[in-house]
Amino acid sequence: MASGDRLLTIDGERLWETIIASARIGPGRTPTGLRRLALTDADREMRDLFAAWCREAGCIVTVDRAGNMFARRLGTDESMLPVVIGSHLDTQIAGGRFDGILGVLAGLEVIRTLNDAGIRTKRPIELVNWTNEEGARFQPPMMGSAAFAGVRPLEWVLARPDAAGCTVGEELKRIGYAGTAPVGGRKLDAYFELHIEQGPILEAKGIRVGVVTGSYEVRGMNVVARGETAHSGPTPMAQRRNALVGASMLIVAVNEIGWAYAPEGKSTSSRIEVWPNLVGILPDYAQVTVDVRHPEATQGERMLADVRRAMRECADRAQVEMEELESWQFGSERFDPELVGLVRSTAERLGVPSLDLPSQAGHDAYYVSRVAPTAMIFTPCERGISHNEAENILPEEAVPGVNVLLHSVLARANR
Amino acid sequence: MASGDRLLTIDGERLWETIIASARIGPGRTPTGLRRLALTDADREMRDLFAAWCREAGCIVTVDRAGNMFARRLGTDESMLPVVIGSHLDTQIAGGRFDGILGVLAGLEVIRTLNDAGIRTKRPIELVNWTNEEGARFQPPMMGSAAFAGVRPLEWVLARPDAAGCTVGEELKRIGYAGTAPVGGRKLDAYFELHIEQGPILEAKGIRVGVVTGSYEVRGMNVVARGETAHSGPTPMAQRRNALVGASMLIVAVNEIGWAYAPEGKSTSSRIEVWPNLVGILPDYAQVTVDVRHPEATQGERMLADVRRAMRECADRAQVEMEELESWQFGSERFDPELVGLVRSTAERLGVPSLDLPSQAGHDAYYVSRVAPTAMIFTPCERGISHNEAENILPEEAVPGVNVLLHSVLARANR
Repeated sequence: MASGDRLLTIDGERLWETIIASARIGPGRTPTGLRRLALTDADREMRDLFAAWCREAGCIVTVDRAGNMFARRLGTDESMLPVVIGSHLDTQIAGGRFDGILGVLAGLEVIRTLNDAGIRTKRPIELVNWTNEEGARFQPPMMGSAAFAGVRPLEWVLARPDAAGCTVGEELKRIGYAGTAPVGGRKLDAYFELHIEQGPILEAKGIRVGVVTGSYEVRGMNVVARGETAHSGPTPMAQRRNALVGASMLIVAVNEIGWAYAPEGKSTSSRIEVWPNLVGILPDYAQVTVDVRHPEATQGERMLADVRRAMRECADRAQVEMEELESWQFGSERFDPELVGLVRSTAERLGVPSLDLPSQAGHDAYYVSRVAPTAMIFTPCERGISHNEAENILPEEAVPGVNVLLHSVLARANR
Repeated sequence: MASGDRLLTIDGERLWETIIASARIGPGRTPTGLRRLALTDADREMRDLFAAWCREAGCIVTVDRAGNMFARRLGTDESMLPVVIGSHLDTQIAGGRFDGILGVLAGLEVIRTLNDAGIRTKRPIELVNWTNEEGARFQPPMMGSAAFAGVRPLEWVLARPDAAGCTVGEELKRIGYAGTAPVGGRKLDAYFELHIEQGPILEAKGIRVGVVTGSYEVRGMNVVARGETAHSGPTPMAQRRNALVGASMLIVAVNEIGWAYAPEGKSTSSRIEVWPNLVGILPDYAQVTVDVRHPEATQGERMLADVRRAMRECADRAQVEMEELESWQFGSERFDPELVGLVRSTAERLGVPSLDLPSQAGHDAYYVSRVAPTAMIFTPCERGISHNEAENILPEEAVPGVNVLLHSVLARANR
């Protein structure tokens, strides 16, 4: 690589202004919060603005049938497989301004930087905005990338309903992002995703670039507790089959399992649905989502076995039945050693200290890694806080990672 | 009382047919279940039918501003205070065919029996259908009688919203039951309420008439747990402030407190609201309803103190804040000794074995007892089950109680 390339740097100020422009769309409860749920009007407004930015940067924008947006910067050899950068522009219901957003807009900044420098690459470069990464409105999360990687059938994805019964397919049409391009089924030369760490390690160590080596394995399931409705007044304790009590026992047990495997292990219940959920009547139905994470697969398996044992114990104690409904697993994917090595060596070449670390959250990159060589770059975030309106980054702490992204992409795109 | 009166009996078959006609309005999930939530179309249909029945029986039907329906059978001396019989025709979301309904329709059967026998009473007799006793759609329960007794201001009652934001006032108008009569503010000679026991005692003892001496004291409150949203993946256990975990700990503790005071004491959490209640994000808000009941006031107070201690412990363990929102108390009312004695002696006079027992559930009679001499009669229900679609009674087990109601009312109305 010529020394000229090595000096090429992104424009941190422009990147920050772009992020701030994004942060005006879908205001949250607080000035630093965002609520830009997938396929809402706010998502449409953001998508429109993103498409306009990409076209201004000379890209061709296409949308696939899952609503995934691809902005293509042509290569000098269009017969070659593209180098792809991506993440997501949707947020949690009380999310921040950076989770996912930084990755997409960093990709845009890479393209703008190449444009300014008059650099053309051999391979085309594509920038993706994946549909519904968060799963806050439509479940499960990482939906667009799951469809792209063939993990979930497109028709299944389009039929997913939100709490009000609107489906992904209907809402894609409504906001004008039911595209016509086929979903996936094509090869990528490489996929890069830059993301805030969503953990406290980089900040604590004062290191600005994380080289993501792989991920925590995540195992999750929905558990339903079934009891019997009864009057909450006269029914003696011994006769009660309160589904909410059973579910609460399980939530407490899941939390204890997380502590038993801490600090590496984590387990979570963050969602419950109860029926009829009224005063005066014992509920006969409660559904709880359980999620266990551990960097070591065998420990993750043990945690899951502990959860299943707790289910049986809680069901007995509460005199209810418990049943495991859907379950899922992700994060066992490993990123491409060559691509991960490229990120690491690029950081070194740029004189930026980096740290190898696993990802603890779910990312589109996991699913994409099943169909393309994949690597992820982490940048610091304040106190590791994300999925919270207080999520924050310092612009100067993000810039080194975006430069590593730029030069990793550039190296790969000229390969 | 003349011996002719003593032989007067209600028509059990006609009462049962009337109950079965009611059971066709607002079908539940199962053939024996009812879903007739207050101020829904099903409630309107039932109210229309009830009003038609009352008019056929020669009564004058008026509706007050809280939607309470009064059917008045004129007395020979209309200057005297009325003897009132009442209960409710609304049900839980998965309720049965008898809770409340039996009381109202037993009152109708009393009036029909008097009509058939050509008996006129000195005092007018009124039959009431109270609005929204169950509190299943609009909270709190016993709303119509609370307004009547001046426990809750009418304007406050009319402004109560359901989960969709429709208010009691709007829904009363919509179904045509926003009456013009003033709410309460008048004297009653006596108030009688017949109700299924909602407990297993009468059935177990083979006794068909319960003379309700008073009630369990019920103390309830809404408790809110406040934590912090965070990503459910990377956030270490030690940093979590999951409001759902705190709330679940409290629900488990409340259940244990119930067991500690069993069999007399009971404590319940049957309702929880969580925000944002999604996968992938720790919730920062959870609200739980707690309800403790004990026949002895001092023990009820101790249970409540235990709940408050548990709140502090759970808040600490889950690293959340807990706060007591609204609280309520009812059931400390005592029924009128003279009227209770009348019910007991009437049963004796009719040769029906009876049992004194406290009520464990909430009833409109509690609020009415604050403004009028009040008594309640219980009849058996299968296995004590209520607020459940399997709620059941045997017609022949209800008839003796309705006859006791008839003769108690008759005695009082000719006083």
